[in-house]
Amino acid sequence: MSKSIGVIGGGQLARMMIPAAINLGLDIRVLAETAGEPAAAAVTALGDYRDIDVVAAFAQGVDVVTFDHEHVPQAVLRELVARGVNVQPGPDALQFAQNKLEMRQRLADLGIPIPDWARIENVEQLAAFLADHGGKGVLKTATGGYDGKGVRVVRDASEAADWLAAGEPLLVEELVEFRRELAQLVARRPSGELALWPVVESVQRDGVCAEVIAPAPGSAGKVADVAADIATTIAEALGVTGVLAVELFETTDDRLLVNELAMRPHNTGHWSLDGSTTSQFEQHLRAVLDLPLGATGCRDEWSVMVNVLGGPTTASISDRYPEAFADQPTVKFHFYDKTPRPGRKVGHVNAGGDDLDDVVYRARAAAAFFEG
Amino acid sequence: MSKSIGVIGGGQLARMMIPAAINLGLDIRVLAETAGEPAAAAVTALGDYRDIDVVAAFAQGVDVVTFDHEHVPQAVLRELVARGVNVQPGPDALQFAQNKLEMRQRLADLGIPIPDWARIENVEQLAAFLADHGGKGVLKTATGGYDGKGVRVVRDASEAADWLAAGEPLLVEELVEFRRELAQLVARRPSGELALWPVVESVQRDGVCAEVIAPAPGSAGKVADVAADIATTIAEALGVTGVLAVELFETTDDRLLVNELAMRPHNTGHWSLDGSTTSQFEQHLRAVLDLPLGATGCRDEWSVMVNVLGGPTTASISDRYPEAFADQPTVKFHFYDKTPRPGRKVGHVNAGGDDLDDVVYRARAAAAFFEG
Repeated sequence: MSKSIGVIGGGQLARMMIPAAINLGLDIRVLAETAGEPAAAAVTALGDYRDIDVVAAFAQGVDVVTFDHEHVPQAVLRELVARGVNVQPGPDALQFAQNKLEMRQRLADLGIPIPDWARIENVEQLAAFLADHGGKGVLKTATGGYDGKGVRVVRDASEAADWLAAGEPLLVEELVEFRRELAQLVARRPSGELALWPVVESVQRDGVCAEVIAPAPGSAGKVADVAADIATTIAEALGVTGVLAVELFETTDDRLLVNELAMRPHNTGHWSLDGSTTSQFEQHLRAVLDLPLGATGCRDEWSVMVNVLGGPTTASISDRYPEAFADQPTVKFHFYDKTPRPGRKVGHVNAGGDDLDDVVYRARAAAAFFEG
Repeated sequence: MSKSIGVIGGGQLARMMIPAAINLGLDIRVLAETAGEPAAAAVTALGDYRDIDVVAAFAQGVDVVTFDHEHVPQAVLRELVARGVNVQPGPDALQFAQNKLEMRQRLADLGIPIPDWARIENVEQLAAFLADHGGKGVLKTATGGYDGKGVRVVRDASEAADWLAAGEPLLVEELVEFRRELAQLVARRPSGELALWPVVESVQRDGVCAEVIAPAPGSAGKVADVAADIATTIAEALGVTGVLAVELFETTDDRLLVNELAMRPHNTGHWSLDGSTTSQFEQHLRAVLDLPLGATGCRDEWSVMVNVLGGPTTASISDRYPEAFADQPTVKFHFYDKTPRPGRKVGHVNAGGDDLDDVVYRARAAAAFFEG
């Protein structure tokens, strides 16, 4: 009997778990909301992940339930666990990926370096925070934000009025002066084993990850050690299982501050599909099944990932294959079978090699065939 | 619209095309004989590949039809082509993989180095061949043989009686004195582009591939050049598309003789899943779709593949994962979701690195967990 994994959510992260499951001889099943999502090849059920009856029926008989996204409500997660379903990561960990206020409070309690922050329930509280932080701050909804949504830079407390009208508390953080953004990924098994990939540099555009360089240039030594220490502390303290992504600011005064957490494979780990001995998708499957983790060494001195975003046209992605493949025979292409829309992540490319400038060039050149 | 590929046959070769198709954003569909075959995740039709109605219905609307095996009858292949289906490799090429007598005659006509051989229709002809070749030879059925089936070493013409009784001509070949067996894989597009992987050494046990070392030790230079030249000549002369595997004898007097041909991904190319920039499965999909081929460089100095064969017990493969994964964190595991039976290929493992002894050790150690 194969071990079986149920993945809630049918997006590209679930899609990219499928090859890993095929290689390892695992039975992967996906609960998607609608037909035709990126993970369609493994979909065994369609339905609403907020409906306990849908989710419980899907989970019937699988060895473990895991996730493509972090949106499954706590009530559903806790009811699954109460019914004896093995959910990894579990609700006690996931709550900190689902609610930024809880995350900030927990990291503060753990003494993890984070930006100054405050819980905001009215404009007066926000005005006070801004006054203490040079008249500016980053306002975030506690739940539901991703890829630049639910985040805005504010310079006046009145800019929070519409979000405050929803009646939910908000998070405000100092506008960190950072040199660059980093990400540290770690995988952890329920029984405790951890494996870390090298810390990477993540280049964001319009709040969306655009490029990743692995390892982060100049990170060997102190930066790598601090990033690894932060991620290890968080994974262990919060009881995270599977892949944990810790997004970090490297400040202009040489500190690392935790920006966001994700408890699933993450865009900043896509390079590992071709650049690491064990990809984040394979490692996530091993980890949630509590199987020994794979080696996380780099297969190339430098790996670079560039996202492919939908452009203004909706030309078929595959129409560009002949030129792109011919131009970049060493680049690995990954497409998600999504209809291109402006700004939508429809795929990514990975390149690797010894010369970082050359690797960056090849990855960007390959991705550029799919723009516009 | 994704490009679509229809694969006839649901075995492990079709299975291993699925991850490549997912990565490239291709729509892969498989025609299997029965439910639960290794490529089940992509099966869209069940039926008999010898039935033109089944195959034609399956082929409806796909951009190209290709194969997991070479058993589709010529009549079915030619009718598909007559109906306008894009079949790669086509019947004119496949006939030489389907019939060893036609293959030997064609290679002889091309001046390709092959063992001495003869067409045998009665015991007298076989007796004459044996008398000319030291009293021994290798007798093969012209069609239907694989993995040691349809092949026997004979030392007396009477040993052919049962096969001759079937009324089909047989092939007899000299028993080649060889130092080792090699394999040269090449991929070719319909429009002509070719890409070769390095020649590999293949270690056979009981007529079944047991281990592969890539590249073949000591092959750099003349051996590599001759092997590449032979495979290129065959691919071009026979009009092969997709992956062509040329199995070779390296004789004790330093010649390379062609043993067998396969026109599909091949066991001697499984190392490429983890050891080459482009795996044979990705390359096969690119080639049959007439897309530009990927780079075929080695990702490690040495790659070693060891097959996992079913042992005397039918213990669940996945029961062995905890020990095997813990012992060999750098080894890549590939399982086919097949019920173990003695001698049956149920998976393989790949290892890579700079030190061949160490790479061989790790691959064998990982595979050994699944024996018995």
